[in-house]
Amino acid sequence: MAPRRKKVYEGKAKILYEGPEPGTFVQYFKDDATAFNAQKKATIEGKGVLNNRLSEFFMQGLTNIGIPNHFIRRINMREQLIRQVEIIPLEVIVRNFAAGSIAKRLGMEEGTPLPRPIVEYSYKNDALGDPMVSEEYILAFGWANQQDMDDIVQIALRVNDFLSGIFYGVGIKLIDFKIEIGRIWEGDFMRLIVADEISPDSCRLWDIKSGQKLDKDVFRRDLGSLTDAYSEVARRLGVLPNQATHMTKPTLIN
Amino acid sequence: MAPRRKKVYEGKAKILYEGPEPGTFVQYFKDDATAFNAQKKATIEGKGVLNNRLSEFFMQGLTNIGIPNHFIRRINMREQLIRQVEIIPLEVIVRNFAAGSIAKRLGMEEGTPLPRPIVEYSYKNDALGDPMVSEEYILAFGWANQQDMDDIVQIALRVNDFLSGIFYGVGIKLIDFKIEIGRIWEGDFMRLIVADEISPDSCRLWDIKSGQKLDKDVFRRDLGSLTDAYSEVARRLGVLPNQATHMTKPTLIN
Repeated sequence: MAPRRKKVYEGKAKILYEGPEPGTFVQYFKDDATAFNAQKKATIEGKGVLNNRLSEFFMQGLTNIGIPNHFIRRINMREQLIRQVEIIPLEVIVRNFAAGSIAKRLGMEEGTPLPRPIVEYSYKNDALGDPMVSEEYILAFGWANQQDMDDIVQIALRVNDFLSGIFYGVGIKLIDFKIEIGRIWEGDFMRLIVADEISPDSCRLWDIKSGQKLDKDVFRRDLGSLTDAYSEVARRLGVLPNQATHMTKPTLIN
Repeated sequence: MAPRRKKVYEGKAKILYEGPEPGTFVQYFKDDATAFNAQKKATIEGKGVLNNRLSEFFMQGLTNIGIPNHFIRRINMREQLIRQVEIIPLEVIVRNFAAGSIAKRLGMEEGTPLPRPIVEYSYKNDALGDPMVSEEYILAFGWANQQDMDDIVQIALRVNDFLSGIFYGVGIKLIDFKIEIGRIWEGDFMRLIVADEISPDSCRLWDIKSGQKLDKDVFRRDLGSLTDAYSEVARRLGVLPNQATHMTKPTLIN
């Protein structure tokens, strides 16, 4: 059965549909995995289901501690209702340990603790491969202003403390993560909220004892089953009591 | 065998001994529980062992995210080596939901979410029953200065985000908690660090699903076995793989 609703945007791992009410979208989590600016691609059965549940779990946690975000409610196995935002075209990355691009760029061994959490930015642009940009670029090109950037850093560091706690409590080290931030208007008042998703697609997660990777690097680097890794994260957090990856056909609302 | 080392201070739940090196103490966790300003007392077999391990776990987590604290290393089942601090005579309390004194004082139902986390202070003085004090009192009496208080609020809110994450990840709601802050000197430079302990003695912890209390209120209000409650917290956090409350005679160092 083809969806009868309107597709608003299709990304590499998610699709946005028009939501049932104004100001909302339905966010659909695909099983598609991509890496290295989509040069590597695969379909990982069950990934979308896991990320839908995990992103729900993390976003609800943020709501609990008063960090506003786009999550409204989960609709079904693969879909969640979210607030429509004007996305700021940045990937906001917080790093606690060197891994990935910073390790390569600075010649650091992966896993080296950083002197303090480092917040950095990539300009969201697939054609350019999401290049790293400085705050100076962001301000000069007007993607965000100084007040936005101050708020973004504060949000990013609070999210880092909270997620670090969640993972520490279940024996996982939060190496780094990426969030996106969007603008919403409440009357004349603009505020910034966390958008997109928080999942093992957007975090680096290492088991504290073994160092085993439990994130998308398993796919990027061919380290085994990605669903096994994501299921392990979900299991530790009590997010998926039963079959994490048991597939059901998504119920399409609308 | 009586300890040959010097007792520096004995409180209701812990004893401080001189440490093996200058600038250190040995913190010994007793099984004694007290409530209502020590009007209610009991010995709870195993509590000290659990709190020693749990405080180690939380303090190490704080170290991981760059919040300095007094913990150096665990010595044995009941003792940990800590940094000697000049304690600020305040209990720094962070509340996310109404419970205990705020619920009584403001006539709120316990469990009511607060509009935002509230930081409050009690003056540490057993004879006076640790009375609540305002920042104005603290500044006027010189227990801390304005810079200290700004730093204390920032530390307290970061600890709150991190602990909220730890507990959220294992299905527990952090209702409120209390920390103490101490001063240390590094040359001429003074810094504030988290001291005392973080444990179910100093937090209110409710199971997210059932609302069951997993903290010292179990003792205060005669709600069952305190060690069962604390063991459940430790079990969920993977802190005590085996017998949580299996007692061994503490090895006395020095």
